[in-house]
Amino acid sequence: MIRITIAGPRGNMGSEAVKMVSEDATFQLVAVVDIINNGLKMKDVKEMAPLDVPIYEDMDQCFREVECDVLIDLTAPESGKKHMITAFDHGVRPVVGTTGFSDQDVEELTHLAADKKIGAIIAPNFAIGAILMMKFSQMAARYMTDVEIIEQHHDRKLDAPSGTAVKTARMIADVREKKKQGHPDETEQMKGARGADYDGLRIHSVRLPGLVAHQEVIFGGEGQTLKIRHDSLNRASFMPGVKLACETVMKLDVLVYGLEHIIE
Amino acid sequence: MIRITIAGPRGNMGSEAVKMVSEDATFQLVAVVDIINNGLKMKDVKEMAPLDVPIYEDMDQCFREVECDVLIDLTAPESGKKHMITAFDHGVRPVVGTTGFSDQDVEELTHLAADKKIGAIIAPNFAIGAILMMKFSQMAARYMTDVEIIEQHHDRKLDAPSGTAVKTARMIADVREKKKQGHPDETEQMKGARGADYDGLRIHSVRLPGLVAHQEVIFGGEGQTLKIRHDSLNRASFMPGVKLACETVMKLDVLVYGLEHIIE
Amino acid sequence: MIRITIAGPRGNMGSEAVKMVSEDATFQLVAVVDIINNGLKMKDVKEMAPLDVPIYEDMDQCFREVECDVLIDLTAPESGKKHMITAFDHGVRPVVGTTGFSDQDVEELTHLAADKKIGAIIAPNFAIGAILMMKFSQMAARYMTDVEIIEQHHDRKLDAPSGTAVKTARMIADVREKKKQGHPDETEQMKGARGADYDGLRIHSVRLPGLVAHQEVIFGGEGQTLKIRHDSLNRASFMPGVKLACETVMKLDVLVYGLEHIIE
Amino acid sequence: MIRITIAGPRGNMGSEAVKMVSEDATFQLVAVVDIINNGLKMKDVKEMAPLDVPIYEDMDQCFREVECDVLIDLTAPESGKKHMITAFDHGVRPVVGTTGFSDQDVEELTHLAADKKIGAIIAPNFAIGAILMMKFSQMAARYMTDVEIIEQHHDRKLDAPSGTAVKTARMIADVREKKKQGHPDETEQMKGARGADYDGLRIHSVRLPGLVAHQEVIFGGEGQTLKIRHDSLNRASFMPGVKLACETVMKLDVLVYGLEHIIE
Repeated sequence: MIRITIAGPRGNMGSEAVKMVSEDATFQLVAVVDIINNGLKMKDVKEMAPLDVPIYEDMDQCFREVECDVLIDLTAPESGKKHMITAFDHGVRPVVGTTGFSDQDVEELTHLAADKKIGAIIAPNFAIGAILMMKFSQMAARYMTDVEIIEQHHDRKLDAPSGTAVKTARMIADVREKKKQGHPDETEQMKGARGADYDGLRIHSVRLPGLVAHQEVIFGGEGQTLKIRHDSLNRASFMPGVKLACETVMKLDVLVYGLEHIIE
Repeated sequence: MIRITIAGPRGNMGSEAVKMVSEDATFQLVAVVDIINNGLKMKDVKEMAPLDVPIYEDMDQCFREVECDVLIDLTAPESGKKHMITAFDHGVRPVVGTTGFSDQDVEELTHLAADKKIGAIIAPNFAIGAILMMKFSQMAARYMTDVEIIEQHHDRKLDAPSGTAVKTARMIADVREKKKQGHPDETEQMKGARGADYDGLRIHSVRLPGLVAHQEVIFGGEGQTLKIRHDSLNRASFMPGVKLACETVMKLDVLVYGLEHIIE
Repeated sequence: MIRITIAGPRGNMGSEAVKMVSEDATFQLVAVVDIINNGLKMKDVKEMAPLDVPIYEDMDQCFREVECDVLIDLTAPESGKKHMITAFDHGVRPVVGTTGFSDQDVEELTHLAADKKIGAIIAPNFAIGAILMMKFSQMAARYMTDVEIIEQHHDRKLDAPSGTAVKTARMIADVREKKKQGHPDETEQMKGARGADYDGLRIHSVRLPGLVAHQEVIFGGEGQTLKIRHDSLNRASFMPGVKLACETVMKLDVLVYGLEHIIE
Repeated sequence: MIRITIAGPRGNMGSEAVKMVSEDATFQLVAVVDIINNGLKMKDVKEMAPLDVPIYEDMDQCFREVECDVLIDLTAPESGKKHMITAFDHGVRPVVGTTGFSDQDVEELTHLAADKKIGAIIAPNFAIGAILMMKFSQMAARYMTDVEIIEQHHDRKLDAPSGTAVKTARMIADVREKKKQGHPDETEQMKGARGADYDGLRIHSVRLPGLVAHQEVIFGGEGQTLKIRHDSLNRASFMPGVKLACETVMKLDVLVYGLEHIIE
């Protein structure tokens, strides 16, 4: 039984995590850390699940009073670092779902975890399907070096291409020899038709109502194609990744950045 | 039984057409028109099918000597017009698979057919699947007005987007009210990510080895998407269209340009 | 401006319809018919939208007191027929989203509408994308006669294949000559691999968590395939169909059963 | 430069391999072994490529007279084992594309290779894209345990499901805990709709003209799906796998069965 504290229990991700942890037989939700309602139980607070679990505003006090193995931190980026340090002080292993860390933050926290020989996971993306898509794409790129990425999102998305598409392209570029794809003499009769160029591979961004968040990575070789596609519908898709991180962090004694590094 | 003459019997399309016509129980191949081998039979010529069918170099002589209902013309563009006029003179209905006609050519030939009250079909594209894809896309655009086109071809193709993609976009633009899709404030972090703009809809061109000729048209509406996709592997895919054109031209007394107009 | 009354305004579909009608500039929501709250305004009822629209329990009284063009009926099947007759009596055109009518009901209501020369639409399915998928599949089957259907739903669905898949298969069977597809000597090494047989075409049902409601119809011909796919995420996808029905029913003077018959 | 002998140079795979090896700058084709034309050069034989490469009928003699690193054996199954033993005797590393070995054959050859500390690869399937699809499917099944397989082939295929589908299912079953997917109460209204059952996962076989050889593996989890798809068009798709095997076998000192084990 892994004893878990959740920081940020009222957010979108946080409330999903409360649900997942409290329903999983191998986990025990021992406390939540929030910015209000100190001293109450979750069941006393209207918008929270009716659980007999204490609420703390001060994480340090929480870990002094409650025996805990893992902290799931789903708060805003600025508090993530502070929370991780507090967790380290108490021998609690943090699982943090924040994208806002600087390279320097990560380096510093990595050293801290190594010094204390305590496991920690920072995961900008908990969607296991997306992680697998990126990992498989990187693996495939070693053997099939021609590849294009088509990412598809709802038409309220402002930026193109998506962060996941760029990250996938970078992971592919890291392993394949640099190459410019397509025919050397190809031309665009209409500007933009061939998509965005990332180190010789092309990224295409589709935006339509009715789409949610999708990405297809297409590898082409003589006489064959290989396609890896992820479709994401909602935040529930993140919970298997959170669960896996909680289980894995118990076996770690270093900080791992990115869920792709704990998937074999 | 429809009696058919084929012009251009040794080309890629022509040899497929010879095969299709000679194997179809409702068709009879009565002659071929070629630029060599006048007076011989097909079976006398090494690279031709072993058929007891006469070869003519002069189409006029061919139609004087052989009773014929339909001319399938798969020759180079420059001869197509001349051949159609000769066919009209003999009351033979032409089915022509040529993309090279000018607007003026088509207009002139349309008048000629109307004067003579004789059916004729000019089809730049005989692939029925592709025609259906375009026709359905146009129909769908009346009800689902947000749409993007992804066309995918082998990486030896020089131009982007494909002619079929542009034609599809034009057919869609013809029926929907003009609109600029996507979020008004969307921006490309990498140039070209959002593809080429055609009247507010986006076209994306993928080029990879292992692909042949594919197109997907994606319609998005609140809570749903509709996708119409055509995959073409080889020239055999054109023959059902040629067959349909031969059957349909017998019932026409005007010239029809484009197979989409004979599909209901 | 089309004046609309909605019956069943608190159901899943009904509340979406209230939202759609009240936000559409060409529609005016003039009343709702419900089984409670007679005499109140919608804005007086907590779970309703804050609209200044009267609530009636008696549809007859509603149509006596309020000028109305179209009735959108999204109530349970048993009341649908009664409501349609009441609407006919007042010259109001009904748009009914009910699947429960017997053949005899439909026939009776068809005669009634014809007698009164009043438009009416009964639509078991308002998802325009799904309707288009079925209609296009039927059209394609005339030209490409080999086809299989793959429908994919969440794994809480109990029946297989889906109603939409069976309806699509029936619409295809209606237009193509009867044929048994696949190789005459094909055998299943594992029972069920080739799916369910419907008049010679095959239907495959996929059930997985993470899926919602999807269907792909694949047509195969020599050297080419044509795929028509619909993905449905939620009930919002029905509203464009409801809107289209309201606009179209104004131009009808007969009853139409099935949205596919008002799509051109 | 790796010196290569090819056995079976006139077969479909063999002639592709001759082309690949003779055009690759890191390979040198030093001999071919055939059942006819002993003593001639390839360029002396009409249906062979015009290469100055000797033809041997006796493999033993070939390896006595020609310095060689790797034997690519694409002959019929019965000769594969004999050829491997001959290669081992001469310190030549075999790469064998045969599916016909018995478990006992493989065991025996594995011991032989281990005794001689010589690398060898037997690969029933050289299509790297297909190998990657199977390997990724197995990896994904550890994290997303609900999965169905849809394989699609031309309608001249007699057996269903395909060997690749069954192998993929077995590889998935090997790593996931046994589970029966779908709703416990689900029922088939039409027999076969839910496909074939393999240890609780479902396999669906589509057969249509216009298809070649395709497989999609769909993983579903709460709020997300992951799809891995391979499309194969022709035998050229096998050559990158043959090339990879030739490169890898040089670094091995044991026998490896299955290309999936040399892909990282």
